[in-house]
Amino acid sequence: LRLDATHHPDALSWVPSANAADTDFPIQNLPFGVFSRVGDDKSHVGIAIGNHVLDVAACHARGLFSGRSARAAEACTTPSLNALMALGRPAWTALRGRVSELLRSNHRDARTHRQFLEPCLIPQGQVEMRTPADIGDFSDFYASIHHATNVGSMLRPDQPLLPNYKHVPIGYHGRASSIVVSGTPIRRPRGQVWRGEGPPVFQASTRLDYELEVGFLVGPGNALGEPVPIDRADDHLFGVCLVNDWSARDVQQWEYQPLGPFLAKSFATSISPWIVTLDALEPYRMPGPERRSADPDPLPYLDGPNVRLSGTFDLQVEAWLTTAAMREASIAQVRLSASNLHNLYWTPAQLLAHHTSNGCNLRPGDLLASGTVSGPTRDSRGCLLELTWRGTEPLRLPSGEERRFLEDGDEVTLRGYAVREGRPRIGLGECRGVILPASPA
Amino acid sequence: LRLDATHHPDALSWVPSANAADTDFPIQNLPFGVFSRVGDDKSHVGIAIGNHVLDVAACHARGLFSGRSARAAEACTTPSLNALMALGRPAWTALRGRVSELLRSNHRDARTHRQFLEPCLIPQGQVEMRTPADIGDFSDFYASIHHATNVGSMLRPDQPLLPNYKHVPIGYHGRASSIVVSGTPIRRPRGQVWRGEGPPVFQASTRLDYELEVGFLVGPGNALGEPVPIDRADDHLFGVCLVNDWSARDVQQWEYQPLGPFLAKSFATSISPWIVTLDALEPYRMPGPERRSADPDPLPYLDGPNVRLSGTFDLQVEAWLTTAAMREASIAQVRLSASNLHNLYWTPAQLLAHHTSNGCNLRPGDLLASGTVSGPTRDSRGCLLELTWRGTEPLRLPSGEERRFLEDGDEVTLRGYAVREGRPRIGLGECRGVILPASPA
Repeated sequence: LRLDATHHPDALSWVPSANAADTDFPIQNLPFGVFSRVGDDKSHVGIAIGNHVLDVAACHARGLFSGRSARAAEACTTPSLNALMALGRPAWTALRGRVSELLRSNHRDARTHRQFLEPCLIPQGQVEMRTPADIGDFSDFYASIHHATNVGSMLRPDQPLLPNYKHVPIGYHGRASSIVVSGTPIRRPRGQVWRGEGPPVFQASTRLDYELEVGFLVGPGNALGEPVPIDRADDHLFGVCLVNDWSARDVQQWEYQPLGPFLAKSFATSISPWIVTLDALEPYRMPGPERRSADPDPLPYLDGPNVRLSGTFDLQVEAWLTTAAMREASIAQVRLSASNLHNLYWTPAQLLAHHTSNGCNLRPGDLLASGTVSGPTRDSRGCLLELTWRGTEPLRLPSGEERRFLEDGDEVTLRGYAVREGRPRIGLGECRGVILPASPA
Repeated sequence: LRLDATHHPDALSWVPSANAADTDFPIQNLPFGVFSRVGDDKSHVGIAIGNHVLDVAACHARGLFSGRSARAAEACTTPSLNALMALGRPAWTALRGRVSELLRSNHRDARTHRQFLEPCLIPQGQVEMRTPADIGDFSDFYASIHHATNVGSMLRPDQPLLPNYKHVPIGYHGRASSIVVSGTPIRRPRGQVWRGEGPPVFQASTRLDYELEVGFLVGPGNALGEPVPIDRADDHLFGVCLVNDWSARDVQQWEYQPLGPFLAKSFATSISPWIVTLDALEPYRMPGPERRSADPDPLPYLDGPNVRLSGTFDLQVEAWLTTAAMREASIAQVRLSASNLHNLYWTPAQLLAHHTSNGCNLRPGDLLASGTVSGPTRDSRGCLLELTWRGTEPLRLPSGEERRFLEDGDEVTLRGYAVREGRPRIGLGECRGVILPASPA
């Protein structure tokens, strides 16, 4: 593990809200995002600290960075994270290290730092978060063996898991244009649906679902034709966010053969606005997924000591639901899914190395998502398709309502956090979306 | 048909090479592209005329446009076609109309025009063509029923065509980052291959294939959540190019279930540099695909009088091959495939309307490709998978060589042209790529 002063579990910030037990953004986190002040279109790179945002370019203008951290801060004077992502880990580490120093309460210059930085801090209530990067390509994997087995057993009870699954990290190209930031309402899509007999009909989807996923944002890219070896894959990963890969299951069922999901997914994908760096997640590394003895060894291009010893992260992820009726009656959100990134069969580095193994070029800001992060237990299933077993086992909500799939007015909120005994919690923030009725036909 | 003076079959240009019988770029064509002068990195928007390129921004600087055509030319002062694409058809038509006027030999001001424009003309031998647009998303369809039936009958002899085929335009998201312009060499990819027994191996693909496709570039986009109705779909299509969707069939066979092709395609996709506008193709419109009486009517969102009367184009497309040995022995290229866009089961407008029917937003410069444009006959099959029936019926080449799939040193050239009695030929130019050996493991 590469731990330094930024990870010190006892570090506190002179920003009081960063020291609250329930904040997602203690000084040990320092995630990056892009924000605009309410009523202003201009976008700026920010770092979350407690319930504030630090305007990185404003700090830079005050001369608070030097050397490598200044070059990294310079890349933050653009309206997206792509330029910073392209610089690579030494730049990210330097910038994060300096910001940690500047925000720390027990630094010998803390008083001066505070004086200089306070004008660069904006309450999160006064900003709107933007998509953090220009995402050139979005690839979505299928890395949870529990999800693949559950979905497979609905379609093929005799062969739930296909023969390739334990060898190839299965994935597909997603749609980049329809990625939206948390808080953007989601319009229920129309599409072709086959009702089991007769010709298909074109109608509003009646089987709208969420998918609880983790996204990995690419740092430096690789040139076309030049694969990234597995032992260097982590250096191409900038950080992680939450991804809700909204899915119209009825559309998907009818369209997906033989080329995979298309319009069932491309109407919208939500992402959380704060990118938690791999640096911040270092203390939460853990060995790559346990293999059963009958499981094949990964092929050499997907294997290595790092994969086995510290390939994944202990990262809790959750999906929460409120319905219009629940909000009306002030009934609290209900948690539908609670899973963990370590449930995946493949590690982030394996996904990235596989993606580039054919020479495919990744670019800074590209998004690789995990696929639905289901675990082995019932409550760790990461979508309604699994939770209600294709709608056959509806969920009972505290409001007395039932849910097979999402109804208009339902709001799904994804959350994620890394927890370790003796350390403050590191959170991913939220990824929210409320379902709007389909537009008039 | 919307024909005007730019389509006049007898029009000639004062650029002599534009009047040659075998040029792809007579004055009736005027396709758009992006070029750099050899040895200069700067990119410029150009229009092909005979064997020259007209530098649009340079013409604009000389004050040769006014009103709407000036606004369109202003959008051509950027290094890609995206800004022009975003302006919409009236702008494209105005610019094309004015350029046609300026280049025409029988215009009353032809002598003056020539004097002003000659400095803006560059021989094509002195330029390098670039990718014509920043392609945000690339979607690839499967619109040839002949291709789908051939491939399906290899995989499922009892059910070659899946039940959804005649209802849904099947497509998938492709990889945008690895789109390269004609002439870029193609590195043979490595990937996981299953040899029919034992565990899979990671090796250089031995079943590398081309796919003869037509690409449609999006003009003005649509907002997320706002589908484009079928009767307005053509106004969102800027123009057409050739697409070679290189495919590693062995990788594809092992990875494609259940989410479709991924690394089997994402190592490279070649496109031709000149975008032939829909305006230029107007004279070659023809009724949409003939349906057999047993075929279902398209659902209303995919149907309309325009689809039936003039939904597609009479556009010949071809794939040609040379091998290293053929070039060595100065043996001419051999034509492998000769097909036509009208062989597709779906029209371009149907593909675009379907793509947006769930609210998915398209952006200017997005690429929609047809999928392999196979026709009903053997010589109209658009890839080696079909031509050699999965390698079981190798092709004999004039050099005495055999081909099941592509070998290192093979060069594939796609060509396309619209021909109509009494009209000069309108060409798409070329889409070329030579296969390089896989990089060392």
